[in-house]
Amino acid sequence: MSGTVYLVGAGPGAPDLLTLRAARLLERADVVFHDALVPPEILFLASKAKKIEVGKRSGRHSTAQLFINKRLVDAARKHQVVVRLKGGDPMLFGRAHEELSYLKKKNICCEIVSGVTAALAASADMGVSLTARGLSRSVAFLTTRAAAGARPNDWVKVALAADTVVIYMGAGEAEAIARALTGAGKSPATPVALVEHASLPGVRKLTGTLAQLPVLAGRCGNGPVAILMGEVYRQAAASQIIAPWPNKHSSGEQSSSSPTARATRNGRARSSSS
Amino acid sequence: MSGTVYLVGAGPGAPDLLTLRAARLLERADVVFHDALVPPEILFLASKAKKIEVGKRSGRHSTAQLFINKRLVDAARKHQVVVRLKGGDPMLFGRAHEELSYLKKKNICCEIVSGVTAALAASADMGVSLTARGLSRSVAFLTTRAAAGARPNDWVKVALAADTVVIYMGAGEAEAIARALTGAGKSPATPVALVEHASLPGVRKLTGTLAQLPVLAGRCGNGPVAILMGEVYRQAAASQIIAPWPNKHSSGEQSSSSPTARATRNGRARSSSS
Repeated sequence: MSGTVYLVGAGPGAPDLLTLRAARLLERADVVFHDALVPPEILFLASKAKKIEVGKRSGRHSTAQLFINKRLVDAARKHQVVVRLKGGDPMLFGRAHEELSYLKKKNICCEIVSGVTAALAASADMGVSLTARGLSRSVAFLTTRAAAGARPNDWVKVALAADTVVIYMGAGEAEAIARALTGAGKSPATPVALVEHASLPGVRKLTGTLAQLPVLAGRCGNGPVAILMGEVYRQAAASQIIAPWPNKHSSGEQSSSSPTARATRNGRARSSSS
Repeated sequence: MSGTVYLVGAGPGAPDLLTLRAARLLERADVVFHDALVPPEILFLASKAKKIEVGKRSGRHSTAQLFINKRLVDAARKHQVVVRLKGGDPMLFGRAHEELSYLKKKNICCEIVSGVTAALAASADMGVSLTARGLSRSVAFLTTRAAAGARPNDWVKVALAADTVVIYMGAGEAEAIARALTGAGKSPATPVALVEHASLPGVRKLTGTLAQLPVLAGRCGNGPVAILMGEVYRQAAASQIIAPWPNKHSSGEQSSSSPTARATRNGRARSSSS
């Protein structure tokens, strides 16, 4: 008899945004395979479990997916409660598809425990609802990262059609995103908001326009960033002025010793890595 | 000094899919204003609070939004911890926009506590990830219900563009949804899945094609239904055969005494209410 593999959402980062079910499962877990970004306070709940980091951190070497799949099956053959703990929710940009298919093929019982996804935590931090009567009744969550063989700019038409857009894992490609969207006809004045480290004490919020997206992304650090876009952010974007940053697409009237420039960390490296 | 109003996500229904933060806040709450669909087990946590139902249940008379806003302000002027408890997440189809704007105007402190939204719980129930490498990297969450003055079919282009689509509160308009989408060029063979009472013991899952959507919706009861659509559901849709239902858009070869017909409750009333 094999045990059960639980694909569990760890939520956006704040330890108390974990669900009660996830907390109880971690207390019972024999083994926990976790992403790199899962905070130590959450892993601490799994007091009797062996904890194994397998996750992928943006830009770092990651454990290959097939290897993770095999380890989950091996663990389920030895233990009753195997937890695969993922940032956010497992079913949204969590690569649950690969793990679920593999576990099913190997006849391993699998249950999914939902979590709070990053976009919702970022919205809470901004204090701006993703939907609003008369302003937004559709929200798209997307990634611009293409798998091998995928058409690279399929995401553009979704971002044009939805009232509110949330781009996951997009900060490193901010310049390409802004270029693709404005090139396809989206107004450069579209309000945008970036939230880094959503739900955590070190949360950073930046607002401006789509034209300023590369600058804003450049001002983010190395944490996970949600890019939010749409009319619902107009008031938030207007209330916080972001000085334009000189870059290769602008005339660059500001000198690099501007307050904006001095406040920028890792800026050029991030925004030009796309 | 006024208290704080917390807009809190109650999650999709299962009491243990509440976050730890929400559970602790409910224990401290002086007053809880809650939606009709929030389960009693969750309200039970608010042991010392006065509980006031203000929410909107589909098809029932609802307390007017302005009246709710005013009651929140009045409560915050009398109490320290005022909880506004909403099904799912407050920032996604939760009408948080109206309440946040009003509270801000009245200088009432407000905090948002994220929750698990229905689409994620429905995905967990289906065992199918909303995103999948090479198959889906964009997900649209939308409602087809138009506010007064809104262009009624704006949602169609979003539903055409996104790889995976989740329609909230759409079961009563299933026939109009299927007609609008197929009329705009979406394949009638697009796989769909409906999840009623996501995350609860009485969860019902129905799968089929977009052409069958009105039939599937007709087989749902009176609980909240998430309509899921896209290639990620192809395998799930293929593994559970839903017999076609004769309706005015099909040639109707099956008689109404088919197993499908006998299994249908409230079917015609629901699907023709749009």
